[in-house]
Amino acid sequence: MSDSVESNRKLSYQQVLALFASDLEAIERSIFDSLDSRNELLQEIMTYIARSGGKRLRPLLVCICAKLNGYEGQDHVALGNVVEYLHAATLLHDDVLDSASLRRGAPSANSKWGNHFAVLGGDYLYTSAFDILLRRFPRDIIQVLCRASLDMIEGEVLQRQWRGRTDITEGTYFEIISLKTASLIAAGCRTGGILGGASSAQARNLKEFGKSLGTAFQVIDDTLDYIADPEKLGKILGGDLRQGTITLPLIYLLQDLPAGPEKTAVEELVSQGDPGDEAVALVISLLEEHGSGTKALATAAKYAEASKENLASFAGSAMHPALIAAADYIIHRSH
Amino acid sequence: MSDSVESNRKLSYQQVLALFASDLEAIERSIFDSLDSRNELLQEIMTYIARSGGKRLRPLLVCICAKLNGYEGQDHVALGNVVEYLHAATLLHDDVLDSASLRRGAPSANSKWGNHFAVLGGDYLYTSAFDILLRRFPRDIIQVLCRASLDMIEGEVLQRQWRGRTDITEGTYFEIISLKTASLIAAGCRTGGILGGASSAQARNLKEFGKSLGTAFQVIDDTLDYIADPEKLGKILGGDLRQGTITLPLIYLLQDLPAGPEKTAVEELVSQGDPGDEAVALVISLLEEHGSGTKALATAAKYAEASKENLASFAGSAMHPALIAAADYIIHRSH
Repeated sequence: MSDSVESNRKLSYQQVLALFASDLEAIERSIFDSLDSRNELLQEIMTYIARSGGKRLRPLLVCICAKLNGYEGQDHVALGNVVEYLHAATLLHDDVLDSASLRRGAPSANSKWGNHFAVLGGDYLYTSAFDILLRRFPRDIIQVLCRASLDMIEGEVLQRQWRGRTDITEGTYFEIISLKTASLIAAGCRTGGILGGASSAQARNLKEFGKSLGTAFQVIDDTLDYIADPEKLGKILGGDLRQGTITLPLIYLLQDLPAGPEKTAVEELVSQGDPGDEAVALVISLLEEHGSGTKALATAAKYAEASKENLASFAGSAMHPALIAAADYIIHRSH
Repeated sequence: MSDSVESNRKLSYQQVLALFASDLEAIERSIFDSLDSRNELLQEIMTYIARSGGKRLRPLLVCICAKLNGYEGQDHVALGNVVEYLHAATLLHDDVLDSASLRRGAPSANSKWGNHFAVLGGDYLYTSAFDILLRRFPRDIIQVLCRASLDMIEGEVLQRQWRGRTDITEGTYFEIISLKTASLIAAGCRTGGILGGASSAQARNLKEFGKSLGTAFQVIDDTLDYIADPEKLGKILGGDLRQGTITLPLIYLLQDLPAGPEKTAVEELVSQGDPGDEAVALVISLLEEHGSGTKALATAAKYAEASKENLASFAGSAMHPALIAAADYIIHRSH
């Protein structure tokens, strides 16, 4: 962090990134330097996964939450690194399980090295995260991240159990994304806070903040999958629909479509699986016509607003505006 | 453990099993009772994997090593459970990666639930092991098991890199099985010892004991894959050969076969991959003719004998004969 900011000053996300530039660079170096296998192929696979990067939102949240109470140590770098490893390992296993060929616009690890080595690369990355944690972090931090990992797996299982089932409810959808996505973001915020000396009550607040924010994040992600610019997104639109994963925009569409041939057609193409480009285009145009995407974005905005309510006890912190800016960014991102 | 034994008394493996019957039963209960997912499908998959069981050799070694110095606590039960979870999770991922349809004579988890759910079941079991460790075990024990997990993954990668390559050396073979199999057995012996209050030197001895014993165990396993009674083995013979994994008996055969059409034929069927029943039968008869299986068994026996040399500092322990019996059993088992 290059300099301090006055509390309650409003910050843009770009300003937050600038404020944490040196921390994020240190995390980026750590992400590469901590890959530590004697096996060259494993090293190559993991470097590729680490490089395919992404927004590094989770490490940023770890940094901000660690510094809410004025933390001046350096362990937030390793913690941010670990949270990103856990995230990347999950993505990798998901890609393999889905036989995805692209990840953020580049060939996925499984399409480059085959499923075997990609699964094992994910296993190694995941275990490396715990190896780093065990070397230097207090037990409560490791436990929070271990429980979050269990949640992520449960979420992934639940999501797959509901594939192609148009009777999925909003409640089940939110249960899935809470486990699959929000749990790790919540754990990152909470452990960042613990590292920075947050009280138990503050750590709980940060967990709840991360949970709402993570939910908003995933709803946006699921909505962008239908309405984004495919080039910015780095993958073709309708990816979830193509694999039978029914997310909030589609749940809203199914709620809002009157009974009739149109609704039946949508239900059939979802439950039969593997819809082609034409079917995806039809659903996208129906989503637009019925405003289901806009409705999902509004729901995400509600979660993002609600997340901020957990930050009252940090109102005096110089880092408070940075968390607010992160919450706002999540809603306004386009990819 | 029902009663104590005099040191240096010779024990049979059956006597060892009887001596540890109540510990092994407690571990068996723990293996089932510790499965703790809210998701019914995950619970069902993990129960199935846990039930498919096997010899529970690793938990037994944990028990014996914990009691070498007279440990009277109960945490060896949870530790034995954890080591078995780590082992089972590895088997599960291996089965998925190999699309194995049978495991110990029963349908494999991936053939019952599909690859997706089997991989996730393995992930959950693996993470549950660390969750249990974090709840009650000292950090050094958790770290040893985390490092062993990294070794196991590296070993699996290395083994796959050498598939179908007849230029594999004995040295590479032993490196692979040391990482893939011996590391967890060594970690089980070492952490059992640490739990029971072993000195650093004793813990190192137990690690070396487990490493040699684990190596012997895997060489026997790889040899039984060619020479066992298929019914006792619970799978068809030549499984390694069919997937292109070149193990010690075949390495010996390739060393001992004179240059000529027979050797060329074997090299070709190995490197081309997916040999049929006839090709497997040919290799098995050549192995018998050239005594390559017998030679591999003799090598295993040497490792098992060498393992005992690490036990000198425990010669006065009532548990010393139990470790000797375990080492002897490994050599003489038929499946």
